[in-house]
Amino acid sequence: MSENLRVAVVGAGRMGADHIQRLHHRIKGVEVAAVVDVDAWRAKEAIEGIDGASAYTDADIAFEASGVHAVVVATPGHLHEAILTRALDRDLQVLCEKPLTHDAATSWNVVQSEVALGNRRIQVGFMRRYDHEYRQLREIIQSQELGRLLMLHCAHRNPQVPEGYSDSNTVAEAAVHEFDVIRFLTGAEIAGVHIRHGRSSQHAGKGLRDPQQVLVETSDGTLADVEVFMNAQFGYQVTTEAVFERGVINIGGDAGIRRQAGGRWGGDVSPGFETRFQAAYDAEFQAWADAARRGTVDGPTAWDGYAAAVCCEAGIKSQASGVPVKVNLHTRPALYSA
Amino acid sequence: MSENLRVAVVGAGRMGADHIQRLHHRIKGVEVAAVVDVDAWRAKEAIEGIDGASAYTDADIAFEASGVHAVVVATPGHLHEAILTRALDRDLQVLCEKPLTHDAATSWNVVQSEVALGNRRIQVGFMRRYDHEYRQLREIIQSQELGRLLMLHCAHRNPQVPEGYSDSNTVAEAAVHEFDVIRFLTGAEIAGVHIRHGRSSQHAGKGLRDPQQVLVETSDGTLADVEVFMNAQFGYQVTTEAVFERGVINIGGDAGIRRQAGGRWGGDVSPGFETRFQAAYDAEFQAWADAARRGTVDGPTAWDGYAAAVCCEAGIKSQASGVPVKVNLHTRPALYSA
Amino acid sequence: MSENLRVAVVGAGRMGADHIQRLHHRIKGVEVAAVVDVDAWRAKEAIEGIDGASAYTDADIAFEASGVHAVVVATPGHLHEAILTRALDRDLQVLCEKPLTHDAATSWNVVQSEVALGNRRIQVGFMRRYDHEYRQLREIIQSQELGRLLMLHCAHRNPQVPEGYSDSNTVAEAAVHEFDVIRFLTGAEIAGVHIRHGRSSQHAGKGLRDPQQVLVETSDGTLADVEVFMNAQFGYQVTTEAVFERGVINIGGDAGIRRQAGGRWGGDVSPGFETRFQAAYDAEFQAWADAARRGTVDGPTAWDGYAAAVCCEAGIKSQASGVPVKVNLHTRPALYSA
Amino acid sequence: MSENLRVAVVGAGRMGADHIQRLHHRIKGVEVAAVVDVDAWRAKEAIEGIDGASAYTDADIAFEASGVHAVVVATPGHLHEAILTRALDRDLQVLCEKPLTHDAATSWNVVQSEVALGNRRIQVGFMRRYDHEYRQLREIIQSQELGRLLMLHCAHRNPQVPEGYSDSNTVAEAAVHEFDVIRFLTGAEIAGVHIRHGRSSQHAGKGLRDPQQVLVETSDGTLADVEVFMNAQFGYQVTTEAVFERGVINIGGDAGIRRQAGGRWGGDVSPGFETRFQAAYDAEFQAWADAARRGTVDGPTAWDGYAAAVCCEAGIKSQASGVPVKVNLHTRPALYSA
Repeated sequence: MSENLRVAVVGAGRMGADHIQRLHHRIKGVEVAAVVDVDAWRAKEAIEGIDGASAYTDADIAFEASGVHAVVVATPGHLHEAILTRALDRDLQVLCEKPLTHDAATSWNVVQSEVALGNRRIQVGFMRRYDHEYRQLREIIQSQELGRLLMLHCAHRNPQVPEGYSDSNTVAEAAVHEFDVIRFLTGAEIAGVHIRHGRSSQHAGKGLRDPQQVLVETSDGTLADVEVFMNAQFGYQVTTEAVFERGVINIGGDAGIRRQAGGRWGGDVSPGFETRFQAAYDAEFQAWADAARRGTVDGPTAWDGYAAAVCCEAGIKSQASGVPVKVNLHTRPALYSA
Repeated sequence: MSENLRVAVVGAGRMGADHIQRLHHRIKGVEVAAVVDVDAWRAKEAIEGIDGASAYTDADIAFEASGVHAVVVATPGHLHEAILTRALDRDLQVLCEKPLTHDAATSWNVVQSEVALGNRRIQVGFMRRYDHEYRQLREIIQSQELGRLLMLHCAHRNPQVPEGYSDSNTVAEAAVHEFDVIRFLTGAEIAGVHIRHGRSSQHAGKGLRDPQQVLVETSDGTLADVEVFMNAQFGYQVTTEAVFERGVINIGGDAGIRRQAGGRWGGDVSPGFETRFQAAYDAEFQAWADAARRGTVDGPTAWDGYAAAVCCEAGIKSQASGVPVKVNLHTRPALYSA
Repeated sequence: MSENLRVAVVGAGRMGADHIQRLHHRIKGVEVAAVVDVDAWRAKEAIEGIDGASAYTDADIAFEASGVHAVVVATPGHLHEAILTRALDRDLQVLCEKPLTHDAATSWNVVQSEVALGNRRIQVGFMRRYDHEYRQLREIIQSQELGRLLMLHCAHRNPQVPEGYSDSNTVAEAAVHEFDVIRFLTGAEIAGVHIRHGRSSQHAGKGLRDPQQVLVETSDGTLADVEVFMNAQFGYQVTTEAVFERGVINIGGDAGIRRQAGGRWGGDVSPGFETRFQAAYDAEFQAWADAARRGTVDGPTAWDGYAAAVCCEAGIKSQASGVPVKVNLHTRPALYSA
Repeated sequence: MSENLRVAVVGAGRMGADHIQRLHHRIKGVEVAAVVDVDAWRAKEAIEGIDGASAYTDADIAFEASGVHAVVVATPGHLHEAILTRALDRDLQVLCEKPLTHDAATSWNVVQSEVALGNRRIQVGFMRRYDHEYRQLREIIQSQELGRLLMLHCAHRNPQVPEGYSDSNTVAEAAVHEFDVIRFLTGAEIAGVHIRHGRSSQHAGKGLRDPQQVLVETSDGTLADVEVFMNAQFGYQVTTEAVFERGVINIGGDAGIRRQAGGRWGGDVSPGFETRFQAAYDAEFQAWADAARRGTVDGPTAWDGYAAAVCCEAGIKSQASGVPVKVNLHTRPALYSA
């Protein structure tokens, strides 16, 4: 496909609106063609500033009218099954925020429909699989460079949840990510789950036991323990500690991926400027292109290039002489005033 | 401009080729329309797989023929002045890799040409200004939340440079970034430069004194010292330590931005999942869109969604009963085999 | 007691020999008066260089003959009960390496004997209670400055154990420290223990399941999970992560005690030179005193003091003049040659 | 010398009083025999609780009367020369707080007196040489395991100094430690000093330029830069970054000694429990001995040993059965109530 992927986003709440901005501003080869929300006003607000996008209140009408190739599903979970069915009917590619559906039975229905179709059309929004550190950890597990994986210690800490958030929400909203991560990392299915409760935080709302300890065992014998703490107050933190036969890897902490092996703890130094500054290069080019499309420059200017050149000449003189050298610039033209 | 920004990349060496891939795969709203290199084969190779891009050996011809809106300059520095002149003649937007030009006098010529044009057209490739940590540090400096900035300690460590790399290369290739960063961070011009040499590494090539100590003073009295070490062997590392009236900030180390203030050292915990996983969401959507355009899914599948749903039901049962619960899945359909 | 505490050490194996050196060289107010070992040669070797110490093969004879005030018990555990009984009979103060005795029934016998005596005479060698970080963590728990303690995640990683080391050794030698630490930190008794096994390391000897997961619950509802890994290969590491209502504390890692609270992670900066250099001051004075008793100096000399004084004068001149100042020393007298 | 080293401490101010406590409570083989202070009350207060110590107002009388073997000098610096002369006259061993004397000329006098005596009698209080991290760094330098040392970046940050503290105090009180450390680490003399001043902190008192940048060059070509910041507010922090031909070492930060080499950053994991808990063992034994001399126990009791034994039995049962096991303790005897 050489043209852009035309996408409909179903659900324009906080998550959906965020994804619309992402698709519009940052995802290459994509255009937002339709936004669907039962709240017509919210759908309209979401397409503001997006040329060529239309707002709808019904997903099926949107799929029909907008000629989309693909769908992002960001509605509440109990609506997923119906939308997925419609999307599969039209053979659209789908990115469905988790959960796939609200329970195992309906999820199995969706799986069977896709199998009947004979093509993989649905991706589920387990975004952690795209986190740099989780991916690195998975590579380390697969490479067996530290031996086989033996245990996983996980923590999922969320600042706070509203009153009414229940024990089962803890599983369906938070632990679900850990279940998927454990499957992703180990490449095995989960064989058993055991949840323990101890003393609860005073910050837990009525009816919520918080934190909870989720004990997991995979089909091939990896033990995992997961702390799920929905009212941890201090911030949002998701960590995994992987214990191997010859070392330990920590991810999600404050210092990038960390390795303990061979008598040392620590991490990797960047091998070169391309890796060190890759994100900076991307951000630079995007910012430059965005400004260029508006016919202007809002990054470092020719004046900055000139000033640097004068400093370099001073530096080279000082290298030769060994003494301090003054830097003298022309007067800054008004074009470059801040 | 609602259409894409059509860009010509001049120079298809390592840096240029990297930027072409970046523009093509990751930068939204942009298309690579022309690649220029004196080596025709290299230019052709660089446009492989990029629909609508043409290869040229002459920049002016490329600008004329390709109908570009903008230019990325990635040639050796001594060619910059001529290309910039042509680009300004055509009033194109430019992203010029550093240096602006090879010396201060020609840089001043470029500045004057752009001033004559009356519009900012040229951005210089000081990409560090787009590095997340440099930007945060600048905000902290401007906010004066730790008081005024007093000193900067910088280190620029590069694994190695080839034989023939000279003292002046050290300034023009490496220290130049530090000069710009000091200007960017302080918002002041540099008033003087002093370079000291001590014992040199045995890994320094003939004629190179390495490392060097670059002492800088800004027009408003900030002292900076910069270690520039081109053959540091152990990796690539660029760090800045900013000393304020009431604290110290470190960036570029191994643990994100670090703050020492009020009796504490450390950093920030992510406030929520959106910030923690923003890069993962972006990567997820880009990967999904790329696969969707090929009519497939290579991320987490409906099977993964189903398996998670079964685990959640087991978890909720265990919450109620307090005992371990087995996880039983249907047989995995062939569509989802690895 | 103004005189020194006269101590008998029973057991001169690796642990006992280490304690003898410790008592003799570093513990103030103590003298090693007797060393007891069934291996007479080992006992004699252990007192070499310790004026006034005698070697014995029988504890009771040693206690009788040596006029000791106190006993350090460092024999294998199954011998402890008999030695403790003798020591209590003589009303001696005891420091008994863990375990108190080899099983719960005999430990209860010892408790009853001490209760009958009416005085606390026995201290058990749970040395972690004297680790700086465990003590700080306990203070944080008691202060409730981060709210109540909710969970503990512990890891006990040992490089390797010899063939023949069994599952029950894992509990009695390693997990026992964690049981005590959990009791020490929480101030509560342990109410239940559950040990889980998953995949075992290939480095585990025959008959050993390794690592093991020890799940603990205290009488007041704190949940703890402990990884006990006896063949972790990469080093020795004992960590505790304490989860509170408003933050998390980590100890035993590589960066001192760490706190995650209020949106920040990190630790404390030393408030002053006394705390920062307290251990250095102690080491300095001990080294000076040890050398002084031999009539010499092996630390920084008067020459070092003189050289520093010359540097200071040069520095003060440079402050006034703003230019570099050379440092000129007299010729170094032979007395101070290295 | 088999008897204790009898020590006179001259100067019972903050520093002296601290040293008296140190000598009395923690330094093995030493007893405080005399304390001298011009303030008789202060000298008396300082010996309180120290059996066998006498208070004096005159050092010479004290040396004569108290039969001391050694002297600790902790008076203001301008009094050092006179005291050192008296001590050398009596051939006493001396530990003299820095500075040796208040200027270079008198320091040279002291050196000459000691040389005339023919024995090293004076140690200067450069306590950083006994800091674990400085010592490790020196070993790394000497071993050349990362190649030759090339540069040192040092920072000396102090929370605050009182009004009246001057530029020259900065050199004599703070930079002096850095001069010694540079000499200690490099094994070379300092060849030149240059001090630069930039913008000063608003927290600097009148007449003080703060921070200062002290540039040092050693006789064998190591360049060092030292930030000396006397009013850094946030805490006390002394750091050194050593740049080698093949790596970088950082000490004095918040994470122990850190190494960047071979593409990795990080530190060492403890090889075994003896190193990991050495300080804990020392503290345990000292605390036990101190309590034992008072006829009591204030560490872990026989009850703690018994409770641990019961937990171990529960753990071993759970290993065999795979299910949770309750822990049942006898009632806690009153002897062990908290």
